[in-house]
Amino acid sequence: MSDTEREVHAVAERAKDAAADLAPLSRAVKDEALLAMADALVDHAESIVAANAEDTARARENGLSEAMIDRLSLSVERIEAIADAVREIVELPDPVGEVVRGKILPNGLELHQIRVPLGVIGIIYEGRPNVTADAAALCLKSGNAALLRGSSSAYSSNTRIVEVLREALAKTGVPVDAVQLVPGAGRDSARALMRARGLVDVLIPRGGGALIQAVVRESTVPVIETGEGNCHVYVDAAADLDKALDIAVNAKTQRYSTCNTAETLLVHKHAADAFLPDVLRRLRELGVTVHGDDRVRFYDPEAVEATEEDWSTEYLSPDLAVKVVDSLDDAVAHIRRYSTAHTEAIVTDSQAAARRFVSRVDSAAVMVNASTRFTDGGEFGFGAEIGISTQKLHARGPMGLPEMTSTKYVVTGDGHLR
Amino acid sequence: MSDTEREVHAVAERAKDAAADLAPLSRAVKDEALLAMADALVDHAESIVAANAEDTARARENGLSEAMIDRLSLSVERIEAIADAVREIVELPDPVGEVVRGKILPNGLELHQIRVPLGVIGIIYEGRPNVTADAAALCLKSGNAALLRGSSSAYSSNTRIVEVLREALAKTGVPVDAVQLVPGAGRDSARALMRARGLVDVLIPRGGGALIQAVVRESTVPVIETGEGNCHVYVDAAADLDKALDIAVNAKTQRYSTCNTAETLLVHKHAADAFLPDVLRRLRELGVTVHGDDRVRFYDPEAVEATEEDWSTEYLSPDLAVKVVDSLDDAVAHIRRYSTAHTEAIVTDSQAAARRFVSRVDSAAVMVNASTRFTDGGEFGFGAEIGISTQKLHARGPMGLPEMTSTKYVVTGDGHLR
Repeated sequence: MSDTEREVHAVAERAKDAAADLAPLSRAVKDEALLAMADALVDHAESIVAANAEDTARARENGLSEAMIDRLSLSVERIEAIADAVREIVELPDPVGEVVRGKILPNGLELHQIRVPLGVIGIIYEGRPNVTADAAALCLKSGNAALLRGSSSAYSSNTRIVEVLREALAKTGVPVDAVQLVPGAGRDSARALMRARGLVDVLIPRGGGALIQAVVRESTVPVIETGEGNCHVYVDAAADLDKALDIAVNAKTQRYSTCNTAETLLVHKHAADAFLPDVLRRLRELGVTVHGDDRVRFYDPEAVEATEEDWSTEYLSPDLAVKVVDSLDDAVAHIRRYSTAHTEAIVTDSQAAARRFVSRVDSAAVMVNASTRFTDGGEFGFGAEIGISTQKLHARGPMGLPEMTSTKYVVTGDGHLR
Repeated sequence: MSDTEREVHAVAERAKDAAADLAPLSRAVKDEALLAMADALVDHAESIVAANAEDTARARENGLSEAMIDRLSLSVERIEAIADAVREIVELPDPVGEVVRGKILPNGLELHQIRVPLGVIGIIYEGRPNVTADAAALCLKSGNAALLRGSSSAYSSNTRIVEVLREALAKTGVPVDAVQLVPGAGRDSARALMRARGLVDVLIPRGGGALIQAVVRESTVPVIETGEGNCHVYVDAAADLDKALDIAVNAKTQRYSTCNTAETLLVHKHAADAFLPDVLRRLRELGVTVHGDDRVRFYDPEAVEATEEDWSTEYLSPDLAVKVVDSLDDAVAHIRRYSTAHTEAIVTDSQAAARRFVSRVDSAAVMVNASTRFTDGGEFGFGAEIGISTQKLHARGPMGLPEMTSTKYVVTGDGHLR
C-alpha cells in the first residue's frame, strides 16, 4: 500500500465510523447542522473567495479556457447562492426511517422494510467547487458520510469550503467526519478511493463521459453512473409538426451544456417533406450546425455529412445529428444502438405509436410530446438531485434523497421460532 | 479476444436482443411459457435423469463427497418438484409495468415511474442443477433474459435442462434466447461473462463465500452479492431467558447449511450466569461444538478456545462461536466488525435496548425476539427468491421478482417546452 492509499483509507475509515453515528440521527439534528453549514459558508465567504483566487490564478497560468475559469470561479454572491441551495435541502423531507413496506405475517411476526442511509458515499467530480457544499449537504441530509474528491484545479477552494463546513459541524450533534475531502489532488488519490471496497459503499462520479467511464472501469467500489446523455427526439409520421418543431428546437437549444439536451433528431420518412425544411431553417437561424445523413442533406445541402461517430456523440454544443428513418421501429433500433439510455422523446398524436415507443425504448426517461429537457430532479418535483443515473441497478433517472438510501428489514416477534 | 470470449459475447448479444423482445410481453404470454417449461421438464424427466447420470458418474470418479453427489443428483421425483416450483412462480404477480410513483406536475406533465425488467441477468452458481430451471423461471417472469453459468460438475444436466426449456419456449411467444446456458465449463467462460459489460446488466452469484468474492473481484458487470451469512444472536441483559434459549438454539440448529443460520452468540455479561450454563448444555446435547472466549469457557471448560478467525467464520456446520460482551454497544461493535450484514437478532424485553440495537445494527435484516432463520423470501411472503442480497445498493435482503427489475420514467405532455 502506498502512502496515498494509506491516507485515503484512513480518511475512509473515519467516514465509516462517522456514518455509523450519523445513521440514527433525527431530522432535527441534521437540519440544524445543515443550517449551520449554510451560515458558515456566508460568514466565511471572503476567505473562500481568497482560496478560490489561488485556483483561478493557477488555472490562468495553465492556460485554461475562460469558460472553464468561469465554472471554477466563486464570488461572494455565488457563495450566497450555494448557501441558499443548502437551505433548500433543509426543507426536503428526510428519507431515513420511511417505512417502505410493512405487514404482519401469518405467524404474527411484524415485518417492516425501512429506509436507512447507504453509509459512505464517495463523490468524484470536476471543476465546479459548488458541488462540494451541495454534495456534502445531500449526503448529510440522507444520513450518509461524504467523501469528496474534486478536481485538482479547485483544490484550494474545496479545501477551504470543507474546512468551513467541518468547523460548522463541530458545533452541532453531527460528527465532523461526516464531511471529508479526500487528501491529495493526484490520480493516485482518486484510484485509492475507487479501491476502498468495504469502506466506501458507493461512488458517484459527476462530470463528463471520460471521467465516468474511467471510474466505472477502475472502481471495485460499486458505482452509480450519472449524467452521460446522448438524447434523441423522434418525430413520428403521426406527429403534430408544430409541436414537433418546438420540441426539437427546445430540446436542442434551450441549453447546450446539460445532459438532457437532445443530440440527435430522428424523423420518420413520411414526415420529412413537411417537417425537415422548417426545422433545418430554424436550427440554422439559431446557429446550430446540423450533421445529417444523405436524406437530410437533400433538404439542406449546407448540413455537414454525418459520420458513424456523430450518432454516438454527446456534443454539449450547438451541433445536432439528424437522420431520416423508415419507421418507428427503425427509430427504436437506432436509439437502442447509440443512446446512453438517459432520455428519449417521441412526438406523435398516435396512441399506438406512443405506446410502442414507450414500451420498446429502454431509457431512464421516455418523453411523449415533451422536451427531453424535463428530465431533472427539480422539474420532477424531487428537489435537489445528486445526479441523473443512466444505469439500471439501484436508481434510474434523477437521484434525489430517497435514491441515496438503502433499506433494511426489521422483524419483531415474541420468541418466534422456525 | 479469445475464442471463449467471442462465444460468450455472442451468446450475450443474443440474450440482449431477446431481452428487448421480452420486455414488452404481457403476463399472460410469460405465464403460458412458464407452464410450457414446467410441462416440458416433466415430459423429458427421464432424459434429464440420464444426462444427470453422466454428471454423477464423473463426480464419483473425481471422488466428490456423498453430500456433494446428493446435491447434484436428480430423480424423476426431484424434477417434478422443480416443475412444481416453476408453476408456483406462475402464480406470483408480474412486477413489470407496476406504477411505482405517479403524479401530475404543476405544468400539467404526467409523470409515471414504471417497473421494467433489468434486461440480461447472468447467474453464476454451484452444484445444484435445480437452480437452472428456478433461475430461468424467475428471470422470465420478471421479463429478463437469463444467462446461466452453472458448475462444470453439473454441465450435462444443465445442458439437457436448458435444451428442454428452450424447446418448450419455441412453441410460445417468448424468444428461445430468453434462456441460455453460457458455453464452456472452464474458468475462462465464467470470466468472459464477468467482463461482458454493456451486454449483461447484472450478475448474481449463488453459492458459497469464495465464489461470491471471486465474482465481486473480477467482474466489470455490476454484481449483486448474495447469501454470505455470518449471523449473530445477541442475548441482552433484559432478555426473557426462556425465549433467548429457544431462539439461540433454533437459529443455530434448525438447519446448519443455510445462510440465515446463526454462527455467533453474544451474551450480555449480566445474563451470563443465568443463561450460559443452560444454553451451553442444550447445545452440547444437540451435538454443537462451542468456540468460546475465556468467559464462556469458565462455564464450559470443554468449549474450544475461540480464535479471531471464529468470529468471522460462516461455519455452516454444528459449530457456534460464543462470546460474553460488556454491553449492548459492545455487541453492536462486534457485529459491525465481523458480520456479513445478513441477519442479526436481539433477544430483549427492553424497548430501549431493542430500539438502540435496531437503529445501530446495519444489516439486511434485524430480528427482535425472533430467530435469524426467518430471513427468507418465502417466510416474508414474497414467494420464490433469486437470493438474499447482503449489499446495500439496489436490493437488500430477500430478492423476489420486484428486486429483479429497474424502473423508467414515462413523461407525457402536449407539446411541453422548458
